Amino acid sequence: MKKRTFPLSKVYGLLETGPVVLMTTAHRGQTNVMTMSWKTMVDFEPPLVACVVSNRNHSFEMLRKSRECVLNIPTVEIARQAVACGNSSGRRLKNKIEALGLTAVPAKTVGAPLIAECYANLECKVVDTSLVKKYGLFFLEVRKAWVAPQKKWPATLHHCGRGQFIVAEKTIRLRSKAK
Amino acid sequence: MKKRTFPLSKVYGLLETGPVVLMTTAHRGQTNVMTMSWKTMVDFEPPLVACVVSNRNHSFEMLRKSRECVLNIPTVEIARQAVACGNSSGRRLKNKIEALGLTAVPAKTVGAPLIAECYANLECKVVDTSLVKKYGLFFLEVRKAWVAPQKKWPATLHHCGRGQFIVAEKTIRLRSKAK
Repeated sequence: MKKRTFPLSKVYGLLETGPVVLMTTAHRGQTNVMTMSWKTMVDFEPPLVACVVSNRNHSFEMLRKSRECVLNIPTVEIARQAVACGNSSGRRLKNKIEALGLTAVPAKTVGAPLIAECYANLECKVVDTSLVKKYGLFFLEVRKAWVAPQKKWPATLHHCGRGQFIVAEKTIRLRSKAK
Repeated sequence: MKKRTFPLSKVYGLLETGPVVLMTTAHRGQTNVMTMSWKTMVDFEPPLVACVVSNRNHSFEMLRKSRECVLNIPTVEIARQAVACGNSSGRRLKNKIEALGLTAVPAKTVGAPLIAECYANLECKVVDTSLVKKYGLFFLEVRKAWVAPQKKWPATLHHCGRGQFIVAEKTIRLRSKAK
């Protein structure tokens, strides 16, 4: 999938719909990937994101130590791989990205890889760890964004729990003063 | 819309898909309502939610002072009212809920009202304000949840920015170990 640099000022529009993301990390020669739904925008520009990573996840220590990650946004075409991601741990599966049949591509500003099959990739630095101990809450600043130009709206996945997802397909437009 | 008490252990499934919510507040005899997309689950049970409210919003002081709110989840049937909510301020429009043609119903555990036309209502107490000053981030504990039994999946709204929404209609199910 060919990707273009995406303006940082527009990143909020990719995340505030609530899509499942695949968070990739890299630390000491190992890479990992986990599925994540618990995240929110916190500020527009530079884009600031808060996300929850449980300390039971292998990615927790990788994120805490490397202080970097990529948020990759999958669409329904790779739904099976996105879910498989959450069904196995990087603790046992060393090359999880490749094992799932996904392709790791080097990022520009962070050590964590981009997942080529995802329609958008957000390179992030951890900028605030004050609530990591209490809630597993990390604040990420998006430093670089990539998006594949789409013919129609990307069919993102939105997790309802226990493997049930809604798929973003129909869109509507209403007059709004909102950003 | 007839509603039933909904188990607190299942509340995460209502929010982690990323729907637009209408946050109602009450303080010193005034009620208010605002649209909100920037929120995430933080813990399962008791359900803990983190949400961002800008100090430019009239709801900011109402939430900070009353330490209570209700997160009401609208569906596409009331999309126009949900957007109109974000297009006017409670600073000028004193009875905003009624002015929008929505119905305020008393909650059980908080002073803020439920919006009758929303398919789900979550009564919340503010439990952590440590990052309100820095990011406008409030932590809410859900104390009581109400859901209208649905025949099919509720068509929630997911904001992409500038009045464009995706509507949650199609669902898929995949084998997942996720909660």
